[in-house]
Amino acid sequence: MPRIVETIVTTIDAAGTPHLAPLGLIEDGDLWIIAPFRPSRTLDNLLANPHAVASHTGDVRVFAGCITGRRDWPTVPADVVPGVRLQDAVSHWELSVVRMSDDAQRPRFHCRIVHAASHAVWSGYNRAEAAVLELAVLATRLSMLPPEKIDAELQYLEIAISKTAGPREREAWDWLMERITAFRRGDADAAQKR
Amino acid sequence: MPRIVETIVTTIDAAGTPHLAPLGLIEDGDLWIIAPFRPSRTLDNLLANPHAVASHTGDVRVFAGCITGRRDWPTVPADVVPGVRLQDAVSHWELSVVRMSDDAQRPRFHCRIVHAASHAVWSGYNRAEAAVLELAVLATRLSMLPPEKIDAELQYLEIAISKTAGPREREAWDWLMERITAFRRGDADAAQKR
Repeated sequence: MPRIVETIVTTIDAAGTPHLAPLGLIEDGDLWIIAPFRPSRTLDNLLANPHAVASHTGDVRVFAGCITGRRDWPTVPADVVPGVRLQDAVSHWELSVVRMSDDAQRPRFHCRIVHAASHAVWSGYNRAEAAVLELAVLATRLSMLPPEKIDAELQYLEIAISKTAGPREREAWDWLMERITAFRRGDADAAQKR
Repeated sequence: MPRIVETIVTTIDAAGTPHLAPLGLIEDGDLWIIAPFRPSRTLDNLLANPHAVASHTGDVRVFAGCITGRRDWPTVPADVVPGVRLQDAVSHWELSVVRMSDDAQRPRFHCRIVHAASHAVWSGYNRAEAAVLELAVLATRLSMLPPEKIDAELQYLEIAISKTAGPREREAWDWLMERITAFRRGDADAAQKR
């Protein structure tokens, strides 16, 4: 399997309205693949405007926020391609679609990095950030997993949170736990809607 | 509990010889705490030269390498403090000790960041990098954990490796697994020595 980086992908529609989505970019030699689900706004946008921006942020609240209905994160215009990047990104890549391989479920857009830039000094690894990302993955798969598997993962991930989190990681964790708790209460509808 | 970042800390002895160690830096208001175990070379070095460099690298082989006997990673001189940083660091901090709080087990050196710099565009989160860091933590605690707990963690962490690792993460994973396998074979001596 190829290497995958987890990032915040911004695309714009024909009118220029940006859409943020946490997505894994798949390494493909010199290129990176964006594989949005069908249907999705990222897919529609890439068909309307074959460019994307990948914002690498150390603030995991953006990931947790995007999947709990908090998508309103400040952006600024990209440098080279039509689109925007996260204002608080540590760094970002600007991507242009080189070719598309169609698929019934997840079309693949093979992109070239046409521009990359740093905006802050990356402060290194934080185990709690990684735990929040894993919890975000878990939170989008709740209906596919047995309750005891969810319990075991929560218990494991909570260790890194209790030992290494700062306020941003705790807030992101709480947003995701709110959704997970709602789902477990049987309130699947509320859990999806946020 | 305060926020902790996992980084490669370089210190030098009185003769200027550098020592690399993977360490967690503990956030302390404006300062960062380095808490080396007693005895350790990092402790001796900080007493001889009250400066340290924290290299933030995206190459988790350095973390896995340092705890499996592979400490020979290229360094370059620091910009401001006496010492060195990893040549391939994405970014680094240069730290000066402001005060020390003594402790029988882990003295705490409270440090100020006196210089910070970026050297490459950070490429964002990779779940496999985080899994390697967790495996590195596990590898240093083998004798304290029941075998079934080790099994469960390995099984969990392996998912991110199989789905998102590139060659660097796989190599780092393999180094750590070699050590863990040796330990489980009862070859605790070999596992410690590497």
